[in-house]
Amino acid sequence: MADHAAIDKAIGYLEEHKGRFREELFDLLKVASISAQSDHAGDVRRAAEWTRDRCLAAGLRAEIVDTDGHPAVIAEAEPVPGRPRIMVYGHYDVQPEGQRSLWETGPFEPVEKDGKIVCRGAADDKGQMFCAIAAAEAWINTAGSLPINLSFCLEGEEEIGSIHLKDVVERHKQRLACDFVLIHDTAQFGPGVPAIAVATKGMVYKEVIIRGPKKDLHSGEYGGMVANPGNELAKLIASFHDADARVTIPGFYDPVKEMPAEEVAMMNGLPYDEAAVLADLGSPKTYGERGYGSLHRRWARPTLDVNGIYGGYMKEGASTIIPSFCGAKISMRLVPDQRAEEVSRLFEETVRARVPDTVTVEIKDLTGCDPYLADTASQGMAAARKALARGFGKEAVLIREGGSLPILPMFKSVLGADSLMLGYCQPNCNAHSPNEFLDIGDFEAGMRSTAAFFGLL
Amino acid sequence: MADHAAIDKAIGYLEEHKGRFREELFDLLKVASISAQSDHAGDVRRAAEWTRDRCLAAGLRAEIVDTDGHPAVIAEAEPVPGRPRIMVYGHYDVQPEGQRSLWETGPFEPVEKDGKIVCRGAADDKGQMFCAIAAAEAWINTAGSLPINLSFCLEGEEEIGSIHLKDVVERHKQRLACDFVLIHDTAQFGPGVPAIAVATKGMVYKEVIIRGPKKDLHSGEYGGMVANPGNELAKLIASFHDADARVTIPGFYDPVKEMPAEEVAMMNGLPYDEAAVLADLGSPKTYGERGYGSLHRRWARPTLDVNGIYGGYMKEGASTIIPSFCGAKISMRLVPDQRAEEVSRLFEETVRARVPDTVTVEIKDLTGCDPYLADTASQGMAAARKALARGFGKEAVLIREGGSLPILPMFKSVLGADSLMLGYCQPNCNAHSPNEFLDIGDFEAGMRSTAAFFGLL
Repeated sequence: MADHAAIDKAIGYLEEHKGRFREELFDLLKVASISAQSDHAGDVRRAAEWTRDRCLAAGLRAEIVDTDGHPAVIAEAEPVPGRPRIMVYGHYDVQPEGQRSLWETGPFEPVEKDGKIVCRGAADDKGQMFCAIAAAEAWINTAGSLPINLSFCLEGEEEIGSIHLKDVVERHKQRLACDFVLIHDTAQFGPGVPAIAVATKGMVYKEVIIRGPKKDLHSGEYGGMVANPGNELAKLIASFHDADARVTIPGFYDPVKEMPAEEVAMMNGLPYDEAAVLADLGSPKTYGERGYGSLHRRWARPTLDVNGIYGGYMKEGASTIIPSFCGAKISMRLVPDQRAEEVSRLFEETVRARVPDTVTVEIKDLTGCDPYLADTASQGMAAARKALARGFGKEAVLIREGGSLPILPMFKSVLGADSLMLGYCQPNCNAHSPNEFLDIGDFEAGMRSTAAFFGLL
Repeated sequence: MADHAAIDKAIGYLEEHKGRFREELFDLLKVASISAQSDHAGDVRRAAEWTRDRCLAAGLRAEIVDTDGHPAVIAEAEPVPGRPRIMVYGHYDVQPEGQRSLWETGPFEPVEKDGKIVCRGAADDKGQMFCAIAAAEAWINTAGSLPINLSFCLEGEEEIGSIHLKDVVERHKQRLACDFVLIHDTAQFGPGVPAIAVATKGMVYKEVIIRGPKKDLHSGEYGGMVANPGNELAKLIASFHDADARVTIPGFYDPVKEMPAEEVAMMNGLPYDEAAVLADLGSPKTYGERGYGSLHRRWARPTLDVNGIYGGYMKEGASTIIPSFCGAKISMRLVPDQRAEEVSRLFEETVRARVPDTVTVEIKDLTGCDPYLADTASQGMAAARKALARGFGKEAVLIREGGSLPILPMFKSVLGADSLMLGYCQPNCNAHSPNEFLDIGDFEAGMRSTAAFFGLL
């Protein structure tokens, strides 16, 4: 049974100290820990040191773990034998500032504006990561210890693909062993709609290059004589979808699971304004697999998209050539229970079967990962839903991410643990854009929710 | 009746002076008259002056005609009332040298090598243009005058699209009035196969841009929600051909005339080694409209080709975006009696009808010209065939060009005259490539043929 009095105390502590927490977060936000830029490597280390020190100040054990890239931080609370084990994942590295002129204030000069904390990293992920450290401090300083076994694995390479995270987790597998991974690195569904992301899509990303003549040819001298790689590439790409916008790769849909009725009902009850989304995108109309709405497709239907296409004469004006080659970057987003390796194989087979013998084809394997789906009936999920209701004063919805997070299948395979993605920022928080923000009310509700989660599990 | 004795005398003169002619041509070849490069404008003018002086030396009247670009040269022989009128077209500007390291000798240092004159412009078109001037001189110095009315319109802008040629022809329409335009700016079919090119293809060149969202989108966040401009562009391009590789634009083939039986028979009798052509191109197989061989398609069937395609992420590696837009350069080669304006209209109608309302489309008109077909039963054509037989000692074949020559429809519309394209160089003469050459035997046979043509008309 959860100790509601203890939860109330921890939440009271967070309320009492919220001004200090905001000031502390500002200190971290000022560190330009851009992992992608090597001249900011020192800043990433400074952010790691700050994070370690902040964990120590919260009453945790904490240390920096070096990698061949940017360092990680591992922290632990005192063991509580017999209680569930939670590992908090987060990151203190950030995206580059992007176009400086579009920032209304300095990208690394945090300010409070209209009830928001505006700064690079406010939402992604320093501000959200901070919520879990503050929640741990609240429990330690009110109850003397945490009601669960708690560890942290915080990294400095999330924005460059979590290059060394698997190494770190494998090396420290015993210390990070857990029943659930807790992640605050997604978003709410919208203002006042707290959400748990239960799934991420997998991905298979290929580059297909169609080759014809060994050099560009004069389209007058040779037009009508040999196959044109541009036309053949277009035929191949066009062949990937049928009239219902379904992917035509044989076997592609075989493992696909329909979204459970509970999730569909929740989805249909959401305040989703499709016209506003379209207006924001500047797209004339929605489009996708027949039989599913656009939110449903984004969450739970696999897709195939051209990410880029190139070949022949691409500059201004006219050049009358038959291109020697044309290529396309093509990615597929996968859903449970598709497997990246299998889809990769089916894609290659289909391409080789469809490309005619008048040209040749090269297929490059660029990246890939499996989809992820949490058990929505787990104890952890139940506790998370209650915790969000307690922290935000509203029932949380289960949502799915259209994006891919390769670390989730990695946590599952290395630690055997499901991930619970409790996102506190807003979906339009400009995570990788200028003027990134975290709503102060969401920051505080987030700290409360995490503290409640520790007590409710 | 042709005066065969006079023809023999003219040809004898050419034989006697062929060494001098070659030396004179070398002087012209040394002038780097690259019309595309503004720092060579003085060289183009020097080439014009050399040409004017050479025409004067041949016994013609000649003058430089200035334009807003590079100058042209107009020359005339003494009028011969009642006789046919021939206007010789040629050009003394040349292509840039290209990749210097691939030249075995200096691009503007003419040499004789293995029976060839090697230099930029040897074939295209200084050497071939020279044949007509030498032939005129031979007649004037043996018969005292030409047996026909002869004018020359020689330009310095052919390699940059004959920008001011129409102006020049219109301004000097009276002096250039003719029954036939004589052009030595094409090639033989192959060694020992002299040819008359009777047709060139027309062209319609478009750029089609498919636009979706107003900026590139994260393919995870939005995949499955909106149409992808890359996929839609591919579908559009794929729709342009059916399974028989015929163009599916409604009405596209309606005006297309089949090649006459005489030409087809001649074509089928040619020494055409398709396997060698494919090996040279590095293409695995021929491809094109069902029911026609590859030479037939090149000469006399309309085509639609992607010349370039672009959009989204085109650099190394993976980027998971839905492109905001993708575009393609698409050109159609036209044959008699297709009209560029009509095909342009049909293309645009078809594109607008086929692009779905989930995206928008922009169509840019890049360039275009009508196809050209000479009357193969004309007196001029008959004389040309006899002249080539006399000059080369072999029957000439009628061939068609896969490329486009907008000046031919222009001569037809402004002067009302058909063009006779008697090409003396080889098809592999490296016209726009390093090590351009003109076979010395062909040069001399060319001079003889042109002289014979003047007498045989």
